[in-house]
Amino acid sequence: MPIVQHQQKGDEAMKKITSRSEDYSGWYSDVIAAADLAEHAPVRGCMIIKPYGYAIWENIKNQLDKMFKEKGVENAYFPLFIPDEFLKREAEHVEGFSPELAVVTHAGGKKLEEPLVVRPTSETIIYDSFSKWIQSYRDLPMVINQWANIVRWEKRPRLFLRTSEFLWQEGHTAHATAKEAEDYALMILHDVYQKFVEEYLAMPVYCGQKSRSERFAGALNTYCIEALMQDGKSLQAGTAHDLSDNFAKSFDVTFLDNEGNTRHVCQSSWGVSTRLIGGLIMSHSDDKGLVLPPRIAPIQLVIIPICKTEDDAVMAEARRIKDELEKLYAIKIDSRINLRPGEKYYEWEKKGVPVRMELGPKDLANNSCVLVRRDTGEKQACLITELKIKIPELLDNIQNSLLEKAKERRNETNTNVDTWEDFEKGIERGGYIFAHWCEDESCEAQIKEKTKCVTRCLPFDFDKEDGEHVCVHCGKKANGKRWIFAKAY
Amino acid sequence: MPIVQHQQKGDEAMKKITSRSEDYSGWYSDVIAAADLAEHAPVRGCMIIKPYGYAIWENIKNQLDKMFKEKGVENAYFPLFIPDEFLKREAEHVEGFSPELAVVTHAGGKKLEEPLVVRPTSETIIYDSFSKWIQSYRDLPMVINQWANIVRWEKRPRLFLRTSEFLWQEGHTAHATAKEAEDYALMILHDVYQKFVEEYLAMPVYCGQKSRSERFAGALNTYCIEALMQDGKSLQAGTAHDLSDNFAKSFDVTFLDNEGNTRHVCQSSWGVSTRLIGGLIMSHSDDKGLVLPPRIAPIQLVIIPICKTEDDAVMAEARRIKDELEKLYAIKIDSRINLRPGEKYYEWEKKGVPVRMELGPKDLANNSCVLVRRDTGEKQACLITELKIKIPELLDNIQNSLLEKAKERRNETNTNVDTWEDFEKGIERGGYIFAHWCEDESCEAQIKEKTKCVTRCLPFDFDKEDGEHVCVHCGKKANGKRWIFAKAY
Repeated sequence: MPIVQHQQKGDEAMKKITSRSEDYSGWYSDVIAAADLAEHAPVRGCMIIKPYGYAIWENIKNQLDKMFKEKGVENAYFPLFIPDEFLKREAEHVEGFSPELAVVTHAGGKKLEEPLVVRPTSETIIYDSFSKWIQSYRDLPMVINQWANIVRWEKRPRLFLRTSEFLWQEGHTAHATAKEAEDYALMILHDVYQKFVEEYLAMPVYCGQKSRSERFAGALNTYCIEALMQDGKSLQAGTAHDLSDNFAKSFDVTFLDNEGNTRHVCQSSWGVSTRLIGGLIMSHSDDKGLVLPPRIAPIQLVIIPICKTEDDAVMAEARRIKDELEKLYAIKIDSRINLRPGEKYYEWEKKGVPVRMELGPKDLANNSCVLVRRDTGEKQACLITELKIKIPELLDNIQNSLLEKAKERRNETNTNVDTWEDFEKGIERGGYIFAHWCEDESCEAQIKEKTKCVTRCLPFDFDKEDGEHVCVHCGKKANGKRWIFAKAY
Repeated sequence: MPIVQHQQKGDEAMKKITSRSEDYSGWYSDVIAAADLAEHAPVRGCMIIKPYGYAIWENIKNQLDKMFKEKGVENAYFPLFIPDEFLKREAEHVEGFSPELAVVTHAGGKKLEEPLVVRPTSETIIYDSFSKWIQSYRDLPMVINQWANIVRWEKRPRLFLRTSEFLWQEGHTAHATAKEAEDYALMILHDVYQKFVEEYLAMPVYCGQKSRSERFAGALNTYCIEALMQDGKSLQAGTAHDLSDNFAKSFDVTFLDNEGNTRHVCQSSWGVSTRLIGGLIMSHSDDKGLVLPPRIAPIQLVIIPICKTEDDAVMAEARRIKDELEKLYAIKIDSRINLRPGEKYYEWEKKGVPVRMELGPKDLANNSCVLVRRDTGEKQACLITELKIKIPELLDNIQNSLLEKAKERRNETNTNVDTWEDFEKGIERGGYIFAHWCEDESCEAQIKEKTKCVTRCLPFDFDKEDGEHVCVHCGKKANGKRWIFAKAY
């Protein structure tokens, strides 16, 4: 009977991953299942983040938290529930979030007098506190972050990308001037979000400003980082909002300036979520499964001892190597003796572990081992005495190479487009389209209806072009700087 | 005008903390406000954990998480919402939690077909997953933890001690045998909870088994750690439940054993929460405010440079000392020049920072500084060159001394009681009463009605007494081991 069980598991484990070319969306789901990252919960739209997926989130969280703290950000925790009345105080804000809210109407065995909304974001309840905490210019800037769960009811859920509940961080600040609030939002965008996503997740991004229709509900301006996925669609990977004094006016957040005048503060808010894991998967993974950049991988090196018993000399050497290196790297030794080496290779390949070390009796006799890169499949022999030099080199190479490859893939699709015909062709092909646009909302709506494609941002990375320009769609006068258009997640 | 503002703040800052002897409950609230740890939220029963309070929680969380991981525990994340039907599957469980539930009835603009409960604990939704994840004995033991927010509607909220929403960790395990599940619960109780609470929070605890009426709803047995607060009341600081196969039967969590038989798993679950911060406050703090054990303090040493400008030699030396020591200790330098030294001493005293360093021009001339212990107020001069030896000594001394003092305080009140008259007197006086008890639920209910005091636990730490024993209340045959009784939070 245990053998039958083992075969069942084997069949399950051998389930082939759909290829990207065949069905990208099916491939995405298969990669998540094969790497055991997450699954749909019995509650519609919600997900269960399994231990290996959660370990990736912990790495993301720990690194971001460190970067925030280096900037002087302090963590706090605010209630899950928001009084209905709070949300209604900022008119655009409530309009934007209403369709997505989950509402508690009963608690403690009674109907509540006022319904409570499960937080879809926490501007309102946090700024109610800011209005009490801030009195003088000496209390500014106030910079607070919280790591929390968020609920936005989702009709078409997809693991990590769109779920009714997700995990995120939300930063909230208050400043004396509009300029400081804007600068802070941009500082977080560049110095934390872009830096982290490029250096750790190996996802190149464009930073830019959202169009009016794509702004956060209640913001003066929304800035974003956008990353291109392998199927040519864009993913908004993080946002930072310049809230100006919009919320400060609704929540009466004022301060006495150093001349004794009462003024409204200006604010920013900014967040990234478990969505980053979706982007990570779609940036690097292949038809064999997950590919993880070393700097975010929960296991950076997996050692596969090729031996048949627990007390073999090969196993002993594998353990010695692990003991020697585990202070420097996240190392796992797969010491299961009921699986063949090939089955183990397959499993850790699907889980995206950057480097696999194969260690057999012949290798041991030569004081050597074989290192296999997950991203390229490249194999190389390595003297065991040289592991301390070779492993960091290899991990760095993989990290850099993943970023470079993603950058090349993106840049190859970048297309400047000046006619509507080319625009439609470009959208059909996928990737980023750079076009002059009139910035009119109704024109944007028409483009969306025709092509299912929206403005991603007005990127900071490119210069204004000389001369007069017209909108690629309606022909009216356009911004000299090209907007990025793409289909998006 | 700024001067007026400053005076207002000064008045607020100088608000006296109610003394413990005058009004213990008022003292508790004042200490929290004076240290700026948390406050009541505009949502009834919920709290806002402010940055300094949250930094304590982060230290608790990081240390516990490290200890869990050393035991092989893996973190995961399960949904906030639980289908109503899940809770109803375990009869005792739903009965226990029903009065405290918050219920989502509307989401995404529609009435839900089945209401969703905001998790009061996650046994049901996690074990639904276990039933899919566990197939064979090879999948056991399964050991999962989650850090999450929890909602149990609270009619008489108190910051940290009882709030409608709180933060916690909940561990959930599945094992092949009942013995393994019980052993795991006890291992967590002793090797993680007791160890952490005593060694880090400096709170001595008794470990023991709860009476039937005090058990977790759905458990075979609940084990707990109990700590005595300064007012003679007990605080349940953590629990570990032996669930046997109760939930496994309701959620069909089975495995094929190595002989091919299908069997139910046996389980444990265990948790500690932000309640620990309430215990921490009530264990060590005094009439001057918060007292924190060094191993959990967000700031271990605060340097107060006594000078009037930012570019003073004293300030420069303070910064040099900070740079030298901050890799070893959590150090803050209070460089504000708009406050007098005395105001700063007062502020950091209220925040419970274990050691304060005073550094003035005369000290600097002698290459010396003054170190002041928060717990005893003891002052000592220290050569700056000897700080590297003196500071760790001092922090260790404070840590040990807080634990010893708490232990002495508790042990002094411990009273063996054999008559009902002495029992009532003992309860009136406060502290732990050790008494023989018949273990009958109706007897326990009567004791509670008469004295407002309940059984805390049958402690593991004491031996059975020889001879026959009778219940201190009803006179029936009693356990040879004494139970602990006390008023409790």
